[in-house]
Amino acid sequence: MIDLKSFVRDIPDYPKPGILFRDITPLLASPEALSAATDALAEPFLGQDIDVIAAAEARGFIFATPLAMKLNAGFVPIRKPGKLPFEFHTHQYDLEYGSDELQVHTDSVQPGQRVVIVDDLLATGGTMEACCRLLEKCGAEIVGCSFLIHLTDLVGEARLAPYRVESVMKY
Amino acid sequence: MIDLKSFVRDIPDYPKPGILFRDITPLLASPEALSAATDALAEPFLGQDIDVIAAAEARGFIFATPLAMKLNAGFVPIRKPGKLPFEFHTHQYDLEYGSDELQVHTDSVQPGQRVVIVDDLLATGGTMEACCRLLEKCGAEIVGCSFLIHLTDLVGEARLAPYRVESVMKY
Repeated sequence: MIDLKSFVRDIPDYPKPGILFRDITPLLASPEALSAATDALAEPFLGQDIDVIAAAEARGFIFATPLAMKLNAGFVPIRKPGKLPFEFHTHQYDLEYGSDELQVHTDSVQPGQRVVIVDDLLATGGTMEACCRLLEKCGAEIVGCSFLIHLTDLVGEARLAPYRVESVMKY
Repeated sequence: MIDLKSFVRDIPDYPKPGILFRDITPLLASPEALSAATDALAEPFLGQDIDVIAAAEARGFIFATPLAMKLNAGFVPIRKPGKLPFEFHTHQYDLEYGSDELQVHTDSVQPGQRVVIVDDLLATGGTMEACCRLLEKCGAEIVGCSFLIHLTDLVGEARLAPYRVESVMKY
């Protein structure tokens, strides 16, 4: 069993003093760690008839496509404004300072399709909550949220309740 | 053999009048088309000892990780400014109006490693050329550039000469 945490680099004081950043680029650069991480993300959802893997740009995309292929699902990109060429739904959400919004094509998920949303990091859960709400506008059934890293101090899991939350590494 | 072009949606006048946008979201949403597209992207580079797949955010990330896993390579993300936590190289390049820059971690590729860079679309080739230059600053050997879609009218292939250019669909 590969020790995935040994491929995560700790960077102190990034992006600002007092924050310890968990840098996953060494994990991505290792074929063995990348493959093991994708297997671990997929594992809780094997055999659960997942139709769609969704993810928000940019880092969510990294794990979404291999996860979709492992679960024989399609991939739906969730984008920042100004990127989608077809009709889209929008969901606005609050940040620490100001607000942000995400968009998804209206025809990206069919009503009743079973969706897992993936991201590299669960911190406050704000982005993931926005993704869930957005896909529910399309009629999706949110089966769960799958994260590579869960920063448990930031209580993102509480914010995402009652959605099912899975993670590969906890800090 | 699946007809991948049948999964590409043509959207006229996006992002501005007179432009025909090739929307790949229907292809991404189909498990069969997504899998076939990834196979086709990997095919020219099978058995060629590729160490690293690199891609620029955000859409390049979509195909980079599955390609890395198929070729048993690592994945290196190329990012817009302000995203990378470790030491990085920067490459600035000209756009139609103004300029843009991309960054990569200095330790992302070891000197002499064999790299394929992937993106969804080859238009003018400006972004891909920037990615090649950036990875050469790390000492990478650029084996080739792999695109899902090549818009041949825009002579991006000439701009990328002498790099090897492969594409799955031509328009």
